[in-house]
Amino acid sequence: MAKHYHTIEGEFRMKKGTLSSPQVAYETWGELNSQRDNAVLVFTGLSPSAHIASSTEDTTPGWWEDMVGPGKPIDTRQYFVVCVNSLGSCFGSTGSASVNPDTGKIYRLDFPQLSIEDIAKASVEVINALKINSLYSTVGASMGGMIALAFCLLYPELSRSLVSISSAARALPFAIALRSLQREIIREDPTWKNGLYDLDTPPASGMKLARKLGMISYRSAIEWETRFARERAFSTIGTASEGPFSLSFEVESYLEHQANSFVGSFDTNCYLYLSQAMDLFDTADFGGSIEQAFSRLKITRAKVIGVNSDILFPIQQQRELSDALGAAVDDVSFNCLESIQGHDSFLVDMNRFRPVIADFFAE
Amino acid sequence: MAKHYHTIEGEFRMKKGTLSSPQVAYETWGELNSQRDNAVLVFTGLSPSAHIASSTEDTTPGWWEDMVGPGKPIDTRQYFVVCVNSLGSCFGSTGSASVNPDTGKIYRLDFPQLSIEDIAKASVEVINALKINSLYSTVGASMGGMIALAFCLLYPELSRSLVSISSAARALPFAIALRSLQREIIREDPTWKNGLYDLDTPPASGMKLARKLGMISYRSAIEWETRFARERAFSTIGTASEGPFSLSFEVESYLEHQANSFVGSFDTNCYLYLSQAMDLFDTADFGGSIEQAFSRLKITRAKVIGVNSDILFPIQQQRELSDALGAAVDDVSFNCLESIQGHDSFLVDMNRFRPVIADFFAE
Repeated sequence: MAKHYHTIEGEFRMKKGTLSSPQVAYETWGELNSQRDNAVLVFTGLSPSAHIASSTEDTTPGWWEDMVGPGKPIDTRQYFVVCVNSLGSCFGSTGSASVNPDTGKIYRLDFPQLSIEDIAKASVEVINALKINSLYSTVGASMGGMIALAFCLLYPELSRSLVSISSAARALPFAIALRSLQREIIREDPTWKNGLYDLDTPPASGMKLARKLGMISYRSAIEWETRFARERAFSTIGTASEGPFSLSFEVESYLEHQANSFVGSFDTNCYLYLSQAMDLFDTADFGGSIEQAFSRLKITRAKVIGVNSDILFPIQQQRELSDALGAAVDDVSFNCLESIQGHDSFLVDMNRFRPVIADFFAE
Repeated sequence: MAKHYHTIEGEFRMKKGTLSSPQVAYETWGELNSQRDNAVLVFTGLSPSAHIASSTEDTTPGWWEDMVGPGKPIDTRQYFVVCVNSLGSCFGSTGSASVNPDTGKIYRLDFPQLSIEDIAKASVEVINALKINSLYSTVGASMGGMIALAFCLLYPELSRSLVSISSAARALPFAIALRSLQREIIREDPTWKNGLYDLDTPPASGMKLARKLGMISYRSAIEWETRFARERAFSTIGTASEGPFSLSFEVESYLEHQANSFVGSFDTNCYLYLSQAMDLFDTADFGGSIEQAFSRLKITRAKVIGVNSDILFPIQQQRELSDALGAAVDDVSFNCLESIQGHDSFLVDMNRFRPVIADFFAE
């Protein structure tokens, strides 16, 4: 139940390059049964750690606290839940902010280009180490959904089902443009110093602006109209409040607050690597087309969940993913949820997501 | 038909502050009839000049070349077309890049906060100078639609009709967030120097990033999927092409090209002022509500045109504007166009826009 670290001994081969003995951080909840077949593997979005939910060892609430636990939709009295911190991230797994054991120096931009497949490959080492030969399900939301797909394509025998939430079979140009611009904003911050920033003074301005753009893409116009309308900010916070173009609307104040909370909590180079990995992902790389790729799947059940107000992973992509899975997998169900919180709905609109997830895991 | 300059003599009072003898640049096409009642006043979006269309004096194509001219939808054999460069802009009208005649220095951030109403007020001086007491129509797209609305609310007797294209009765928080972030990106560029940038080396990085964000908000995901899919860039251009996070997709190359064309063509501070003016605009300021404001209108015809793929001025806002106008104006028509080019459709999807505009002006 506590935080664990698995070291992959020797040379770990990535799509482009290698790492020496990288480490994968993970957390678990519940108990593995005697058949070792009740495990649920969860992959995260770009920014969370492996801390999905609180436990006796770590009582801080997790990023999906409502979803995982005793009596919750992914019921830890029944399932053994494993969540990995993605390779390339900065919450215990090896990433560009880690020390390269071969040189004794922090990788920074010497870290190889990261792919979604690399994250799946590093994660399977944890499953192997836990001596799990058959997973009840592989689950992922957003970037995590891409990793879950890659995992099921790379290791078709390992998982019996797949749950993809607000994710995609490949990155499309609108999302690529948004993420590319976030990365460029960071790279244009002079304190980024081509990745060699002082760890005590990371590129806060670039990260803050990139996070604001992220928030714009994670939520929806209709949510903000309902929530903020044209309300003026009572108090403005941070540097953006000064000067003739200072923040004046509540929505600006909200973004300022969200961005300030993020800056400092996530390593900048790690963010760049993970962001780019999403752009590069295309399941068609596993075959000439998505359909050909999916023909190698061995899962027997799949659920695709999307939200109609999501502009980053739009509902059409969820429908396409569901249709493509339907051609290869016996039992595929698709849920289009009417949440107004856009891409972030799976983190906040729990009343809509809980029953759908509970239904899948209640067999 | 050539470019004209009208100087507003004396003190010009703005919502907040005053200007000494500001100038408004404008262009005209066609001839004013003897009754002086065949004029069509056109307001522009944030970035264009008053050069809507080519003329014998200036043969360079204008930003709405397909729409204005002899035999075109706004037929200059019938109408006298006037287009003003907005107050606060940098194409001949007084803005923050102009010299303050009182001090002999460039205004920069001493220019008063700009409002959409100020632009309308400066523009009416041109109409008065032309001795026009009754305009056939007032037309505006995007920010221009906001100015057109303000103009008809401030001078109800002046215009007989209104055409609003992909515009809004007020700025909503999603659009405010996007524009606010563009402004913050620019202000965070160290070369902006709190508005005191060297005119030879303006904040190119900030302007470029802001323009890319602009383009993301001006077009649509579906257009880019159709146009670029996951095509890789053959050649990358500019500084963003270097390093491990260099541009690799065609959509990134497209944005790079678009942004590079914009940088240097628009003054940075002027951009900040005009962008903020849009956020501040709310027709409810003319009354307790939009409906109360519109009750002062005297136009007899109005057309509202919107595009269903527009994320910056979404189609719901067009419908609301049309409904609100319908309560105050006899003849209101609404067109929802199926263009895929998002907010920019009125500039590029001429096959869809031409007949709708032609129909309005063909009475």
